[in-house]
Amino acid sequence: MSKLRVESFTISLDGFGAGPSQDLNNPLGVGGTALHEWALATQTFQRKLFGGSGGETGLDDDFAARGFHNVGAWILGRNMFGPVRGPWPDERWRGWWGENPVYHVPVFVLTNHARAPLVMDGGTTFHFVTEGITLALERAREAAGGKDVRLGGGVNVIQQYLRQRLIDEMHVAIAPALLGSGERLFQGIDLPALGYACTKHEASPRATHVVISRQ
Amino acid sequence: MSKLRVESFTISLDGFGAGPSQDLNNPLGVGGTALHEWALATQTFQRKLFGGSGGETGLDDDFAARGFHNVGAWILGRNMFGPVRGPWPDERWRGWWGENPVYHVPVFVLTNHARAPLVMDGGTTFHFVTEGITLALERAREAAGGKDVRLGGGVNVIQQYLRQRLIDEMHVAIAPALLGSGERLFQGIDLPALGYACTKHEASPRATHVVISRQ
Repeated sequence: MSKLRVESFTISLDGFGAGPSQDLNNPLGVGGTALHEWALATQTFQRKLFGGSGGETGLDDDFAARGFHNVGAWILGRNMFGPVRGPWPDERWRGWWGENPVYHVPVFVLTNHARAPLVMDGGTTFHFVTEGITLALERAREAAGGKDVRLGGGVNVIQQYLRQRLIDEMHVAIAPALLGSGERLFQGIDLPALGYACTKHEASPRATHVVISRQ
Repeated sequence: MSKLRVESFTISLDGFGAGPSQDLNNPLGVGGTALHEWALATQTFQRKLFGGSGGETGLDDDFAARGFHNVGAWILGRNMFGPVRGPWPDERWRGWWGENPVYHVPVFVLTNHARAPLVMDGGTTFHFVTEGITLALERAREAAGGKDVRLGGGVNVIQQYLRQRLIDEMHVAIAPALLGSGERLFQGIDLPALGYACTKHEASPRATHVVISRQ
């Protein structure tokens, strides 16, 4: 059965999944890049994001790599796709990732503002879904052709899927950083009451990795 | 200079320092004991709490042990001293720890309800302070005779001291457990804005240990 998975989603020690004041210059919010040091050091991210041959193997890389295994489609909240808010002023914004994005599969972007699909190089097509999270998941599952669907975030979108118990498995990394404010991943979410439990716990010098699974 | 230190204070993955519904049967709240598995497994806790000779050494024990080094006095919130709320109905409640508590130094209990000091066996005296956190710290420092003061908690008391930047150093353990509700340690606290940073980060299979220090 195709799963809905969150992978490599990183929070700070004080629980924030992104820093405050997200904009074009700070796609992860102010201070948010400190969260991702563990990931950026991995061979997997060096390859996927920068096409480089460097990066480290080991526990962090194992977790980074599992995030790309058996993924047939992605779902992203609109703020992860870009800094534009409200109705699309034009078609110019084509994502943070250039003409050949890291996904290489169909990506379903949740938004309140319709837009034609964007066919990018390398197999990525951005589809803009205005009919809500359930339909986005249906379309993503169909597009994934039996593989899993990866939910990229952000915090608000993950919370919406958690509240409906639609997420099967969630890998969360806890980075040794403090953000102080921003969006807290587990704010107002009672995971045990929703039937989730921590099923894996391993740590490297750069991050603590946990897997939270629906029981 | 005598420091004010928080030690071995454990939070869940979702950020809670104690579970909900704290009472006589659940001094750490429902589910709260899962937080402390790392500590209970250590040689230090086995000795200090149960007088036993068992328990493990290693990273968890190193962190448990440092919490007792150079401590000349403690400060506790009233709810950590016991489940009694409001005015003391009588003098019968003498703490969770029996006649020879684990402290062996003066302990200053923050409360709104005056009570005569309680002299226990083994060097522990509970002093009840109704004049607020700053005076409690002054009295604890004086009693500590040059050693440090350890702040035991709970969450609300730690937050009060953090907001006034009175805590020098805070060892927080993050346990691979989910509580879902309760008291969140960093709720409404902007640590970077208060001048705190993460200065140490190490993990064992049972917990991630971080030290957060005032800069």
